Amino acid sequence: MSVVNVIKLHKIMGDELAKVESYLDQFLHFEHQEIAEGALHTLHAGGKRLRPAVVIMTASFYNNADKVVPLAAAMELIHMASLIHDDIIDRSPTRRGLPTLNVTMGPAKALHTGDYVLTKALEDVYNLPRGKEIVKILGNLSMEMCYGEVEQINSMYDVKQTIEDYYYRINRKTALLIAVCCQVGALASNASPQEVQKFYDIGYNIGMAYQIKDDILDMEMSEKDLGKPAGSDLAHGIMTLPTILTLQKDFAEKEHLLDLIKSRFPKGQEQVQEALELIKKHHGIKEANQYCRRYIEQSKRLIDELPENKGKLVFKLGAEYVISRGY
Amino acid sequence: MSVVNVIKLHKIMGDELAKVESYLDQFLHFEHQEIAEGALHTLHAGGKRLRPAVVIMTASFYNNADKVVPLAAAMELIHMASLIHDDIIDRSPTRRGLPTLNVTMGPAKALHTGDYVLTKALEDVYNLPRGKEIVKILGNLSMEMCYGEVEQINSMYDVKQTIEDYYYRINRKTALLIAVCCQVGALASNASPQEVQKFYDIGYNIGMAYQIKDDILDMEMSEKDLGKPAGSDLAHGIMTLPTILTLQKDFAEKEHLLDLIKSRFPKGQEQVQEALELIKKHHGIKEANQYCRRYIEQSKRLIDELPENKGKLVFKLGAEYVISRGY
Repeated sequence: MSVVNVIKLHKIMGDELAKVESYLDQFLHFEHQEIAEGALHTLHAGGKRLRPAVVIMTASFYNNADKVVPLAAAMELIHMASLIHDDIIDRSPTRRGLPTLNVTMGPAKALHTGDYVLTKALEDVYNLPRGKEIVKILGNLSMEMCYGEVEQINSMYDVKQTIEDYYYRINRKTALLIAVCCQVGALASNASPQEVQKFYDIGYNIGMAYQIKDDILDMEMSEKDLGKPAGSDLAHGIMTLPTILTLQKDFAEKEHLLDLIKSRFPKGQEQVQEALELIKKHHGIKEANQYCRRYIEQSKRLIDELPENKGKLVFKLGAEYVISRGY
Repeated sequence: MSVVNVIKLHKIMGDELAKVESYLDQFLHFEHQEIAEGALHTLHAGGKRLRPAVVIMTASFYNNADKVVPLAAAMELIHMASLIHDDIIDRSPTRRGLPTLNVTMGPAKALHTGDYVLTKALEDVYNLPRGKEIVKILGNLSMEMCYGEVEQINSMYDVKQTIEDYYYRINRKTALLIAVCCQVGALASNASPQEVQKFYDIGYNIGMAYQIKDDILDMEMSEKDLGKPAGSDLAHGIMTLPTILTLQKDFAEKEHLLDLIKSRFPKGQEQVQEALELIKKHHGIKEANQYCRRYIEQSKRLIDELPENKGKLVFKLGAEYVISRGY
């Protein structure tokens, strides 16, 4: 995305996102100091605030952005809770370069802080227009996210998984959450059922692209940018699109690549790096980028079908950002 | 409680509790088979179904028991989710004599199954009379339960804690959940605000008594009855009322008891047993039973203040059961 476009997007979205940020900062000052500090630590560790941005973008379409700040915040909190729980399971020492709650509080308190944040997320949502409907959607979302996490565990180091298996997982891990951000942003703006569905579909496509891109960046970026070694998904047995696409091909070193994965990289990062080189050499990343691009193009086609509105440009800029971004 | 009273209670409550059981059994057949099996495993491991019973008892007061079955089930699921998460943190190999999900699925999937059950619990509640209000109460309850769990961790092996510290924890661990069972059972039966508050207070007193009794039984019962060695709370550094009361006294072996706890029982169960003997000898259990009895008496006084209704007898039988029960 050009610098001009980034500036445009920031200008359009900046005010509302700043409101979300200050809302979250206030909202996370709970009565229980230790849990509050844990939640604030996670919040202040950063993040792209993609999910609030999507809610705000959708509501902007209906000149309703300032009304959905609590909803935008809730979506970030649901995401935050899932990260806190993921870090416990993965025993991750750091996230975004800072120690995880798993390290600072220990897994037990981190687990309860995650539970707390997840429940707290819903607190202000009830009072929104169509709040009851939205809370129900968010409950269902959380359940589907659990399915996705369990399948991610089940599919670790499984070299036979298909693109469909991958799609099942990333839909539940990411796309559904972003689809729901659009859906509830539209619902809380009293959009028509047809428009709500359209926004949902746009969010789904953006979300799929976003996760594919995330998985590509995990392989492409340096340890300095990522705050963790490149290829950490693969190192942990999580097979993402570039790997799956590469393993569908025939090539001389294929057995070696399979062996590296199936043996779980006994020599560590050096072998992960070797696997990454093979995936790059056989165009796994390049092709995954094409899949990502296709989802973004589809999201733009759907955006075009929306009624004329200046919000369409904002949405297209947002969609384009997903694919052009660094980590 | 006399055999006659147990039979009476079962006769009054039996039908409705059977409905809750069959509702739960149906409700936990989720789409995702592994998570469903995990949840059903936990359900079928048993439990006293105290929480559903309290909801049903309250609603019976308004001839509304058959309408609150989904709510009674939800309260059991919130409890179940917290047990699943507790077992991960405590690394418990068994609960009620069966392997925990932490063992059968591993901690990662168990964590997500707990998250799932917690969210699923709310699914049918929205549709009840005053569903929105009830869901909000349940969200707040879950958050307070997290506070309690974190404080339980913070207070481990802390020999300086007071009865108030203990009350803070067991309120959030147990009493609040049972108070809320009463509260929502009354709300969903369209009770007056005064009656809702009265039921809440009754539940609170029953819940405090219930947890004190649970903590006493952990010291009194045999390994065969408990499915775990006697004194397992103490062995894990969880200081319950008999211990706290004993440590407030002066006696010859006090320093030795303090040393055993502070050194975390380096010789294992033999030393836990030694500590239990000291607590019994200095009337820690006997006095804790008196505290428990006081809560039950208070709950009965509050029950007496309710309008005349045949449900009052049921409630008193229920309250009496809490203190007379085995494990």
